Amino acid sequence: MTHLTLALDAMGGDFGPRITIPALSLALAQHPMLNCILFGDQAEISSYLNKLSPDIQQRIELVHTAKEIDADLPFMQAIRQSKGSSMRLAIEAVANGKAQGCVSGGNTGVLMGLAKQLIEPLPNIDRPALTSLIPTINGNSSVMLDLGANVEADCELLLQFAEMGNVFAEVMLDLVYPRLALLNIGTEDHKGTQQIRDTHQQLKQRNHLNYIGFLEGDKLMNHLADVIVCDGFSGNIALKTLEGAAKNILSLFKKPTEDSHLCRNTKRYLLRLIFYRYYKKLQQINPDRHNGATLLGLSSVVVKSHGGASERAFFYAIDYAVQQVTGQVPQKIASRLQKQ
Amino acid sequence: MTHLTLALDAMGGDFGPRITIPALSLALAQHPMLNCILFGDQAEISSYLNKLSPDIQQRIELVHTAKEIDADLPFMQAIRQSKGSSMRLAIEAVANGKAQGCVSGGNTGVLMGLAKQLIEPLPNIDRPALTSLIPTINGNSSVMLDLGANVEADCELLLQFAEMGNVFAEVMLDLVYPRLALLNIGTEDHKGTQQIRDTHQQLKQRNHLNYIGFLEGDKLMNHLADVIVCDGFSGNIALKTLEGAAKNILSLFKKPTEDSHLCRNTKRYLLRLIFYRYYKKLQQINPDRHNGATLLGLSSVVVKSHGGASERAFFYAIDYAVQQVTGQVPQKIASRLQKQ
Repeated sequence: MTHLTLALDAMGGDFGPRITIPALSLALAQHPMLNCILFGDQAEISSYLNKLSPDIQQRIELVHTAKEIDADLPFMQAIRQSKGSSMRLAIEAVANGKAQGCVSGGNTGVLMGLAKQLIEPLPNIDRPALTSLIPTINGNSSVMLDLGANVEADCELLLQFAEMGNVFAEVMLDLVYPRLALLNIGTEDHKGTQQIRDTHQQLKQRNHLNYIGFLEGDKLMNHLADVIVCDGFSGNIALKTLEGAAKNILSLFKKPTEDSHLCRNTKRYLLRLIFYRYYKKLQQINPDRHNGATLLGLSSVVVKSHGGASERAFFYAIDYAVQQVTGQVPQKIASRLQKQ
Repeated sequence: MTHLTLALDAMGGDFGPRITIPALSLALAQHPMLNCILFGDQAEISSYLNKLSPDIQQRIELVHTAKEIDADLPFMQAIRQSKGSSMRLAIEAVANGKAQGCVSGGNTGVLMGLAKQLIEPLPNIDRPALTSLIPTINGNSSVMLDLGANVEADCELLLQFAEMGNVFAEVMLDLVYPRLALLNIGTEDHKGTQQIRDTHQQLKQRNHLNYIGFLEGDKLMNHLADVIVCDGFSGNIALKTLEGAAKNILSLFKKPTEDSHLCRNTKRYLLRLIFYRYYKKLQQINPDRHNGATLLGLSSVVVKSHGGASERAFFYAIDYAVQQVTGQVPQKIASRLQKQ
């Protein structure tokens, strides 16, 4: 792939262009073949754009829209009123083939709703699944899906998630035969809901998948599986619990609020000096590095960033989209599912 | 309450009497009104019992049984073959009124199955819920239920969990008007499954409960609610994910395997010295301190310890049972539900 174009919702997320533009600049510097169509309020964006170097600027096409989706609107109303908004325009750019992927930090539900409405689903996929890489304690990643697109999932849908997750891990983690597991509340055959037990039996018979059985929540970070399949309800709860735990525990080292500035910095410096290896490990499980969830099962790449993402975290979300487009994830899923 | 008797399955858990007896000794020393009926293999237990001081020993009644439930047996077979086992005898002691509560580190499924078979349920409770205190980042605890007794829960059952959890928090956390939340994948009214949305509407109308709405997984540790209600599937996954994350992150500080013994200890000492406050905070979220899940909704107290619990962790499980018996948790739930 010599060139690729991403559509970016510059206004999405809690901080808008203040975060999205510097993050985009990082991504353009990192990926020389990347171009970007930027959707958002010109007046607000310009000051950030003007700070970028001319060669970076000329790889960005700005499409002005003053309209944003109000984050407080109820779901259906937000969808109805989305026309002309930065988020919807970014998705439409993908749907029309002007971009190969899009990234937004806006409302997850609205983004998923619009993407499902506007972008062609892949053949043999009933419903897309929100998919992300989660950090493991040894510094690697596992693929996890569904993380909230489907609050309920029957056996057939879970099997589709397994097939999609398998291809996703092959591409994104560069694996030949990814270990696949089902998230459950125990490892014995009789554990869990009927859907999960049925899926377990079906997966055992799919010899092209490296199915290793049930995985419990406490093993999520232990890199025992490369792909973890679940319904969107338990997946969302597991992922958020993991993120919350990691953030909370890391925050103990970041915010010694009772100390003076000097004392705080000294402690931080000492911590890094003495525990450099630990510090590096802690950084590896920093949720920022794993920002970005993709709506897997559509014919193009749609990536959702955390609303509260930092510049660095939003960069990772863009990077995540770039990797999926260059790795041709949607095409590979379509071709794999056709063969079966 | 002047005296209380607990029945203890000495053999349950990964380490049996090696852990359970020293833990019991700690609990007896801590609670002068506590007596214990101990079930297990006399030959194996004696050597540990003999190490205890005579005044501790005389508060322990040992009932010999060589039979244990094989941890590898399938669930139904384990239940059928449980007669005369240390776990079943401990539960029977509670069912017969010889003890007011029991503690076991054996198989969770079998313990719940036997307890539901043998111990009277509370009136107006359809199914008991596995309930535990979870650590919060500010050093407090929240009550969470169900943690795995019911893989599915309809609105009526979730409402019962809410009522039970409310009483449990009043007693165990010494609160007057505990903040109650429903675990969900978002905070808006339309989020989650139909059961959860229905329960949400019903809870809003129960004015005797301090219902604060939905809570997401990333806020579990943030002490935003005192009681967190969920079905057993998502609850089990959330709790295990939380425990796994905490254990994994804490392990980064415990196992510098590449260092020499001296270097390791020096680093550990330095860590504690410089970051004493952090270290204390990290200890507060150590899962050991929150070991013990109770099967809430039965007429007596049944506590399950982690199978891999350490001596200290198993002590906390016993302590947890003592607090529930002295706080008369089952009686208070029965009386509260009768009044409605």
